Amino acid sequence: MRVMHPEDMHDLAVGAAVLGTGGGGDPYIGKLMAMQAMRRHGPVTLIDVDELDDDALVVPAAMMGAPTVMIEKLPNGTELSTAFRNLEAYLGKPIAAVLCAEAGGLNSTTPFVVAAETGLPLVDGDGMGRAFPELQMVTFTLHGVSATPMVIADDKGNGVVLNTIDNRWTERLARSATIDMGGSSLIALYPMDGRTAKKSVVRGTVSLAADIGRTIREARAAKRNPIEAIRRRLGAYPLFTGKVVDVNRQTVGGFARGQTVIDGLENHQGQRLTIEFQNEFLIAKRNGETLASTPDLITVLDSDTGEPITTESLRFGFRVVVLGLPCPPQWRTPEGLELVGPRYFGYDIDYVPIETRLGHASDGKGGSS
Amino acid sequence: MRVMHPEDMHDLAVGAAVLGTGGGGDPYIGKLMAMQAMRRHGPVTLIDVDELDDDALVVPAAMMGAPTVMIEKLPNGTELSTAFRNLEAYLGKPIAAVLCAEAGGLNSTTPFVVAAETGLPLVDGDGMGRAFPELQMVTFTLHGVSATPMVIADDKGNGVVLNTIDNRWTERLARSATIDMGGSSLIALYPMDGRTAKKSVVRGTVSLAADIGRTIREARAAKRNPIEAIRRRLGAYPLFTGKVVDVNRQTVGGFARGQTVIDGLENHQGQRLTIEFQNEFLIAKRNGETLASTPDLITVLDSDTGEPITTESLRFGFRVVVLGLPCPPQWRTPEGLELVGPRYFGYDIDYVPIETRLGHASDGKGGSS
Repeated sequence: MRVMHPEDMHDLAVGAAVLGTGGGGDPYIGKLMAMQAMRRHGPVTLIDVDELDDDALVVPAAMMGAPTVMIEKLPNGTELSTAFRNLEAYLGKPIAAVLCAEAGGLNSTTPFVVAAETGLPLVDGDGMGRAFPELQMVTFTLHGVSATPMVIADDKGNGVVLNTIDNRWTERLARSATIDMGGSSLIALYPMDGRTAKKSVVRGTVSLAADIGRTIREARAAKRNPIEAIRRRLGAYPLFTGKVVDVNRQTVGGFARGQTVIDGLENHQGQRLTIEFQNEFLIAKRNGETLASTPDLITVLDSDTGEPITTESLRFGFRVVVLGLPCPPQWRTPEGLELVGPRYFGYDIDYVPIETRLGHASDGKGGSS
Repeated sequence: MRVMHPEDMHDLAVGAAVLGTGGGGDPYIGKLMAMQAMRRHGPVTLIDVDELDDDALVVPAAMMGAPTVMIEKLPNGTELSTAFRNLEAYLGKPIAAVLCAEAGGLNSTTPFVVAAETGLPLVDGDGMGRAFPELQMVTFTLHGVSATPMVIADDKGNGVVLNTIDNRWTERLARSATIDMGGSSLIALYPMDGRTAKKSVVRGTVSLAADIGRTIREARAAKRNPIEAIRRRLGAYPLFTGKVVDVNRQTVGGFARGQTVIDGLENHQGQRLTIEFQNEFLIAKRNGETLASTPDLITVLDSDTGEPITTESLRFGFRVVVLGLPCPPQWRTPEGLELVGPRYFGYDIDYVPIETRLGHASDGKGGSS
């Protein structure tokens, strides 16, 4: 158990953007929403998933939609609790705790809004260990948890309850409703009992995000290299150092899809890194050779400040360091790769764990497989 | 009170296609569904809206979607009752009677499926007195009835509950879900009490449809002109007699939209009628001059048999008679015309009642205003 205060949201948002691998929405917005709610309603208690009763009802809350749209459509916060409370009413059973659907970006902080407003504890963990663009892409799906009953709410007062035959149908129907609602919505879904949460949750990712943010902040305060600090903290792979020379980004079907090209600097001079993204960074190729791919994490950091850069804030001229991180083991099963592997996203490559491609991270150099 | 038997569905389906003004779905499919359900579960009791208790819950049931898609995707019937029963469960109150959302085509017979399966009476009336393409286009909207809570179901087992801020939002969200579900869905919506039903329902339209069908059938059996028989029965305006020379039809955003061109025969030789449709026939122009427009009814009949022709079955070479009919008075108010007048559908013309445009129907000639 750990009590989280409004000022803890600064570190959490930074760390969540690192784990968000460019997606999951702008952490700045989520931070503001969470801090506002916590100042108004009090701090949030973070609990370990093992503290839940087996029969307790636990429900993830999140925002859905294209991050590019969310930036222009900041919700007032209470809508999130509306979706959450509507699902509780629909289920006819009190909810005992709030859960994060993803550890990345906006949606690592939005559950704090719900926890603060409802006074419920927040479980230290999530359903991805990172961010992903579609809502069936959670470890809950791997454990047979239905995404529905699911509640969708918008900022105008419209509400939708879904009951679907599988989680891909939930994604399909929820995505259309979200687009109709103006491109983003507030959702409560994957209601589950404590027993199921203990098996399926990726543990400790909320406090991990807070630790990552703190590591970057403390390194900068001590005039140490923040990127080197988090590389060590996380056992990350330095994939590339360079300057952004092209960003091609479109909002298609509710997603921010595109590609960025980075020309090498320092020890990568003369090389070129290409990163494909669909809300999140999914594939990193150096001179055409794959260095890392989904579900492993690819994160882009500002060379000077160590601040993570989202796909929607990426601009020509940015000097960046690209890091790679092993994903949670649940994603490396055949079922996990079917849900979030490169082929699901339309890339004709096999998933190879980043450790296999690049060898041990501790050498600090990286390399090709 | 009147008891309706499976064999009554033949006349009802024909009459409903006349009132359907080309839309509302293929009456043949609705007839088969209703007859099957009534043979299995027994006849359906048709009641006058005044027989409802003021506090009784009454709910319309219907299919939603493009008729062109429905033809290829015949549901098994029980899905309709699923949507209906799911709404009842959501509302937590027993439903006392079934209601028709529209008097046209498929959706004048689908409520018989629900009535037969549930054993509930069916109210003799509907929310349009014809067919219209969007679900906010009902007299219920004019009386402030909310379309939601609304339940949407598909043939696979997916279900959606909507709660929206107005009935246009219901249309928007339900349309997207219907498109996701493969182009058609089963819906239960506009739950209302008996008191509201008595004010808002267009009365007697189910038995009217059955009477129209009987009139055509009896005229044919007696070797009389069936079109002349229904023209007299309804006080309809004969707008045009001719041969279909062009049909331009597309399915756009879940609707069958298009235009048909009819070249004159007999006393219309040398003239040309153009009809614009969006699921239903909306505007009829002779040599560029408007003869009739929504919300008045424009219906196209086979010259020989008197059988009504839907927009999706219209083909080059068909010999047809086009009739015009005054709409229910509720549609002629400013609020009614805002909802279903020509301008809502994107046509830059003012609504003029067909009686004003064409004079008295009893002269049997028609003419221009």
